[in-house]
Amino acid sequence: MRLPDILSTHDPLLASELAQAIDNKTKPLGSLGALETLARQIGLIQQTTKVALHKPAILVFAADHGVVAEGISAYPQSVTWQMVENFLSKGAAINVFARQNGCALQIIDAGVNHDFGKRVALMDCKVGRGTANFAQKPAMSWAECAAALAHGMRIVGNLEGNVIGFGEMGIGNTTAAAALMHKLTGVPVADCVGAGTGLSPEGVLHKQDVIEAAVALHGEMSEPLDILATFGGFEIAMIVGAMLKAAERRMVLLIDGFIVSSALLVAARMQPAILDYCVFSHCSDEAGHARMLEHLKARPLLNLGLRLGEGTGCALALPLLHAAVNFLGEMATFQSARVSGQSA
Amino acid sequence: MRLPDILSTHDPLLASELAQAIDNKTKPLGSLGALETLARQIGLIQQTTKVALHKPAILVFAADHGVVAEGISAYPQSVTWQMVENFLSKGAAINVFARQNGCALQIIDAGVNHDFGKRVALMDCKVGRGTANFAQKPAMSWAECAAALAHGMRIVGNLEGNVIGFGEMGIGNTTAAAALMHKLTGVPVADCVGAGTGLSPEGVLHKQDVIEAAVALHGEMSEPLDILATFGGFEIAMIVGAMLKAAERRMVLLIDGFIVSSALLVAARMQPAILDYCVFSHCSDEAGHARMLEHLKARPLLNLGLRLGEGTGCALALPLLHAAVNFLGEMATFQSARVSGQSA
Repeated sequence: MRLPDILSTHDPLLASELAQAIDNKTKPLGSLGALETLARQIGLIQQTTKVALHKPAILVFAADHGVVAEGISAYPQSVTWQMVENFLSKGAAINVFARQNGCALQIIDAGVNHDFGKRVALMDCKVGRGTANFAQKPAMSWAECAAALAHGMRIVGNLEGNVIGFGEMGIGNTTAAAALMHKLTGVPVADCVGAGTGLSPEGVLHKQDVIEAAVALHGEMSEPLDILATFGGFEIAMIVGAMLKAAERRMVLLIDGFIVSSALLVAARMQPAILDYCVFSHCSDEAGHARMLEHLKARPLLNLGLRLGEGTGCALALPLLHAAVNFLGEMATFQSARVSGQSA
Repeated sequence: MRLPDILSTHDPLLASELAQAIDNKTKPLGSLGALETLARQIGLIQQTTKVALHKPAILVFAADHGVVAEGISAYPQSVTWQMVENFLSKGAAINVFARQNGCALQIIDAGVNHDFGKRVALMDCKVGRGTANFAQKPAMSWAECAAALAHGMRIVGNLEGNVIGFGEMGIGNTTAAAALMHKLTGVPVADCVGAGTGLSPEGVLHKQDVIEAAVALHGEMSEPLDILATFGGFEIAMIVGAMLKAAERRMVLLIDGFIVSSALLVAARMQPAILDYCVFSHCSDEAGHARMLEHLKARPLLNLGLRLGEGTGCALALPLLHAAVNFLGEMATFQSARVSGQSA
C-alpha cells in the first residue's frame, strides 16, 4: 500500500498576492479577523487567489469498539448501529446541519457490530464487527488497520468536491481517541479522558484506569501506525487514510471534534504538512480537545460547547468557509468602489 | 412619543417543555451546547416549542459624527457616504454575507453628511447631516434624538420577519460608543476606547483624551436618553428605537459588535427585559467590546476577531440560529428513531 505524500502549501509569492487582495477589500485592514486567515489558507491550498469551494461533503465513519466491554461508555454498544439507522433516516443532528448548509453527507460502515444488509445510502467498508478490546490485546491486526486506511484513501480518491469534513459515530470511541492522544502527545492520561457521551465522574476515573492499564500492557511504541492499530478504531483508521488522501489531493480538510482530531494526530505524525490543509471547525466540550488543539497549534473557528461528534462541527462551520471564499471573491476594492483609504 | 413596553420572556412551564423537547433528541444530553441555549431562548421569545425563523433582515443604519473634527478616526468622514454607496452597489462585506446566508438587507440613511438624492435601495431617515461635535456641545438636540428613536421604531414596526440584525456605518462612531459605554457602565474611559478602524496607539490615547474632556464638559447625567443625546449618533439612536420596537414585537434581536452593543446598553437601561430577546452574534476585536458583553452578561456565539461593523457579525451568526431552530424542529427523538437511551 502506497501512502499519500503531502506537500506543504508554503508559497511566499502567492501568500503576498493573497494578502494584497485581502487588504484591498473595502474594510479596515485585518477587520475580518479569522476569516482573512482562512481565505489566505484556502488560497494557498488551492494555489490561486481565485478561491472557490465545490461540492462540500461530510463523511461519517461508524464503527464499534471492543473496549466497551470494560464499561467505559454511558450508552450501550447497540447505539452505534441504531444511530447509523438514524443517519440513514435523516433524523440525526448531522443530517439537519448538513442539509441546512448545503453539504453532501455520506455514511460509511467502517466496522459496526451489526448486519445492515444492502442499503443504498450506506457505504459498506466493514473491516470487522468492531475492534478487539485493547484492554486485552491490540484493537486491530495490521491487516485490518491497512484495510481501513485503504478504504479511507479510496473513498476520498473518488470524491468530486474540494472541501471535505470528517465525522464519526462509535460508542466507546472517546476512549480510543484519549489513548491515541496520550500516546501521540505525551499528555497524561488523566488530561486526555473526558465524559464522552455523559459518564459520571467515577465513570471518567474508571475510563482513565482502563486506558492506563492498557498503555502499560502494550508497552512502548513510537510508530504512529503501531499506535493506531493498538488503540484506534476502524472508523479512526479509515479517517486517517481519508485525511491523508484528501490532503494529497489538495482538498480543504474540515476537522471536527475530539475523535476526528485524534485521527489527525496520527496523520500529522506521519505527514506533518497535512496541517497546512486543515481547518479546525470547533473546540469541543470533551475534556481533552482543547489540549489536543493546543498541541496541534490549531485555532478553531467555533467554540460552542458542542460534544456530539458525527461531523456536526464541520457542518456548522461550513458557512464560515463560504464567507471567507465569498468576501475574497465578491467584495469591492477601495479602487473599484472609489472609497478613500486611511488618512495619512 | 410612546416608547415600547417590553415584557420578560420568563415562562417556567414553557422552559421545561422546551428542555424536554431538546433532551429527547437523539444526542447525548446537552451535547449541542450553545445551540441548545439558543433554541430555548428562541422558544421563549416565540412562546412555543415549534420555533421558526421567518424573513431574517439586517438593518444597516449610517450616520456621521461631529466629533470626527477632533481627529479621532483613521479614515476621513467621506468614507461614511462612500461606504453607503458601496452597500448600494452590493460591494461591501455585509452585502456578501447577507446574500450568502439568505438575509434581507436594508440600508438606512440616519444622518449622513452627504446628499444621496432619491435612491430606491436607500431608506431616507436623515435626521441631520451628522451630529454636532460632542467635544463642544451635545451631539444632538432632544428633538433630533426623539426623531431618530421614532424612525427606528417605525422601520421595525413595518418589518414582516421575526429575526432582525442591527448594523451600522459611521466614521467616528466607536468614539461615540466608547463614551456611551463609559457613561452607562462606569468602566473607565481608558478601557472603553479602542483602535476603531485602525488608529495608532497615540491615536487611541488622543481619542481617550477627547472623550474624557467631553465627559467633564457635559457633567453628571444618569438618564439613558440624556446620555444618548449627548454622546450618541443618529444611527445609534435609531438602533435604540429599532431594538425597543423589535423586542416589543417579540422578534429575535441579533446584536453585532461594539457600536450596536452600545445602543443596547441604552435600550437595556430603559427596558432591562430587552436582554431576553438578544442573541449576541460575536465578540468583536474592538478593545471595549469584551468588557461591554461582560457587563451585559452576554455569551457571544462567535469569536473570530472581527471588527468591521455593518452587521457582519449578525449575518455570519445567522446560520447558527437556523441550526438551533432546525435541530429542535427536525431531529428525531430517541423514541421515534428507536435509539437506546443512557445505560442505567
